[in-house]
Amino acid sequence: MQEKINKLIRPEIRALSAYHVPEAGNMIKLDAMENPWSWPDELRDAWLEILKSAEINRYPDPAARTLQSDMRRAMEVPEAAGVILGNGSDELIQMIIQAVASPGRVVLAPVPGFVMYRQIAVVAGVEFEAVPLQDDFSLNQEALLAAVKARNPAVTFLAYPNNPTGNLFDADILHALLSCADGLVVIDEAYAPFTDASFMSRVGDYDNLLVLRTLSKMGLAGLRLGLLAGPPAWLEQIDKTRLPYNISVINQLTGSFALQHTDYFMRQAQEIRSQRAQLFSGLQALSSLTVYPSEANFILFRTPAGKATDIFEGLKAAGILIKNLDGSVAALQDCLRVTVGTPDENATFLAALAPLLAT
Amino acid sequence: MQEKINKLIRPEIRALSAYHVPEAGNMIKLDAMENPWSWPDELRDAWLEILKSAEINRYPDPAARTLQSDMRRAMEVPEAAGVILGNGSDELIQMIIQAVASPGRVVLAPVPGFVMYRQIAVVAGVEFEAVPLQDDFSLNQEALLAAVKARNPAVTFLAYPNNPTGNLFDADILHALLSCADGLVVIDEAYAPFTDASFMSRVGDYDNLLVLRTLSKMGLAGLRLGLLAGPPAWLEQIDKTRLPYNISVINQLTGSFALQHTDYFMRQAQEIRSQRAQLFSGLQALSSLTVYPSEANFILFRTPAGKATDIFEGLKAAGILIKNLDGSVAALQDCLRVTVGTPDENATFLAALAPLLAT
Repeated sequence: MQEKINKLIRPEIRALSAYHVPEAGNMIKLDAMENPWSWPDELRDAWLEILKSAEINRYPDPAARTLQSDMRRAMEVPEAAGVILGNGSDELIQMIIQAVASPGRVVLAPVPGFVMYRQIAVVAGVEFEAVPLQDDFSLNQEALLAAVKARNPAVTFLAYPNNPTGNLFDADILHALLSCADGLVVIDEAYAPFTDASFMSRVGDYDNLLVLRTLSKMGLAGLRLGLLAGPPAWLEQIDKTRLPYNISVINQLTGSFALQHTDYFMRQAQEIRSQRAQLFSGLQALSSLTVYPSEANFILFRTPAGKATDIFEGLKAAGILIKNLDGSVAALQDCLRVTVGTPDENATFLAALAPLLAT
Repeated sequence: MQEKINKLIRPEIRALSAYHVPEAGNMIKLDAMENPWSWPDELRDAWLEILKSAEINRYPDPAARTLQSDMRRAMEVPEAAGVILGNGSDELIQMIIQAVASPGRVVLAPVPGFVMYRQIAVVAGVEFEAVPLQDDFSLNQEALLAAVKARNPAVTFLAYPNNPTGNLFDADILHALLSCADGLVVIDEAYAPFTDASFMSRVGDYDNLLVLRTLSKMGLAGLRLGLLAGPPAWLEQIDKTRLPYNISVINQLTGSFALQHTDYFMRQAQEIRSQRAQLFSGLQALSSLTVYPSEANFILFRTPAGKATDIFEGLKAAGILIKNLDGSVAALQDCLRVTVGTPDENATFLAALAPLLAT
């Protein structure tokens, strides 16, 4: 069998390691940029009331029209723009890449960046080109535009704010990129609830700008709902790569329900922003750390050389799961990433971290 | 913009038409192989009770372990086999093809067959090879094996029972295919609840056999849950093409809940099988029709030449939506497909059909 597998499965796929998600058990979960609050009873009850009408025996609306218009409204998508919904932005990234994938095609993104751009590009059989960020994780305009000119990428992905670094790229550089790129430029605004910056209102201003959003960071990670906005002529083509009934009946109903309660989620986002400021100060007070400014719901920090994994494990032993980025890419050596949690969770984390730095 | 689109979007994708799903409105819906019964109150209440525990703010278990073991049990997957879950079998078909997709690779399937094999192959950039069925929609062993020998497909898909024809292929021919094919052979058992035949117990007997299942036809089309079973060494590779959090928290919980009530759904499948026999007799009694035997929850029939679309439209005008296959592929000229509904729905359909044949 192994011989058949080696012959049939593409070498790039065989070389991939499976995506590994660590077991959280009963730990305080500050690893995955989740909203830390579960739903209050009154929201839950109202939701279950809605689900009573779910027709689970019928296929979902393939265009998810109600949810689509609810998401357009909540995300202030320009009226002239088209939208496609996906199971998380992951599925939308996959659709975009599939629409352009052919031998010789290149997908480009800054690194460190969201790992799925590379992963999905490899699976789709296109080449991934990484453009290194500067030491402070800002974009180097010259290097970016030179790489775009040299490789002529079919798609350039930029997370805005960037994951896992947390910073916002200079908008002027993105405008310069949009003006000079022949390919699509996808601005991935997964962390939009935690920043005032956005390119959503600019959809339509450029003939190659697509904007990605998700409900995951807003507080609905379990739902897996993403949105792609862009010029209808592009989206009409990309939509052909979508599996027709991609969003389940229950996910559609639940998404629409949650978006009737955006106030609730927006208040939580505000609370996370204010908690982020406190957590940032708390980390900065630990003088051996380098802490990076964040416009997202997580904070990246660099530990003293060679200490990241020990600290990560020490936190785990104390019942706190964060993300160890040491060993992922060179620029993230000694780096850890912590999601902003509840005030209590953040305090517990800081209290557990301080003694680990002293050893 | 159109120039950029023409340059960037692959020509095969531009040539695709978007998947069209007709609006059912308040019509009797006999077009999509759905289970006609909605959930009784006691089942619904027990389900909503389970959903109270849903943590929508957290990412789903990426491996969906609980649901996986529930599906293994319900579908009698051999212990030594691996499984992968997908959003419907569509997503699993996509994963399989992506794992092997590269220029020159071929995906093969009998035609008429399930249209998504071709659609997904085209999107993945591989060639689709159609092997025509015989006039009675049975497999021609010689032609099939000759095509496999000539084209050496990376994957051969066979729907068992076949959609949209409803018949079961000769198992001996499938065994011959499994023995001689160098590529993967995927036996798609979407309609398993309505037949006694299955290759599930044979998973592991061949080093190239994968079996696909779905909960859709069992009565959970709205959920979009499919299962792929096969040798673990193959599935380990195919799983790398899966988007990590592909199945939402709520779909996982709902799937597990439903599988604790398989008795309920199996009784419905039995009822559909008995209704299928009655519907078949009713159609056969209309002498101008050719009716094809079915092991699925639908029946294919051929109308007098040139009449299919008129009959389809006549039924629509009477408030009944079935599927018009005339014009899809040559072998289905004048063909319509009706899903087995409730006794009342089937009777209404037959009563509306008879006068349309007289005109």
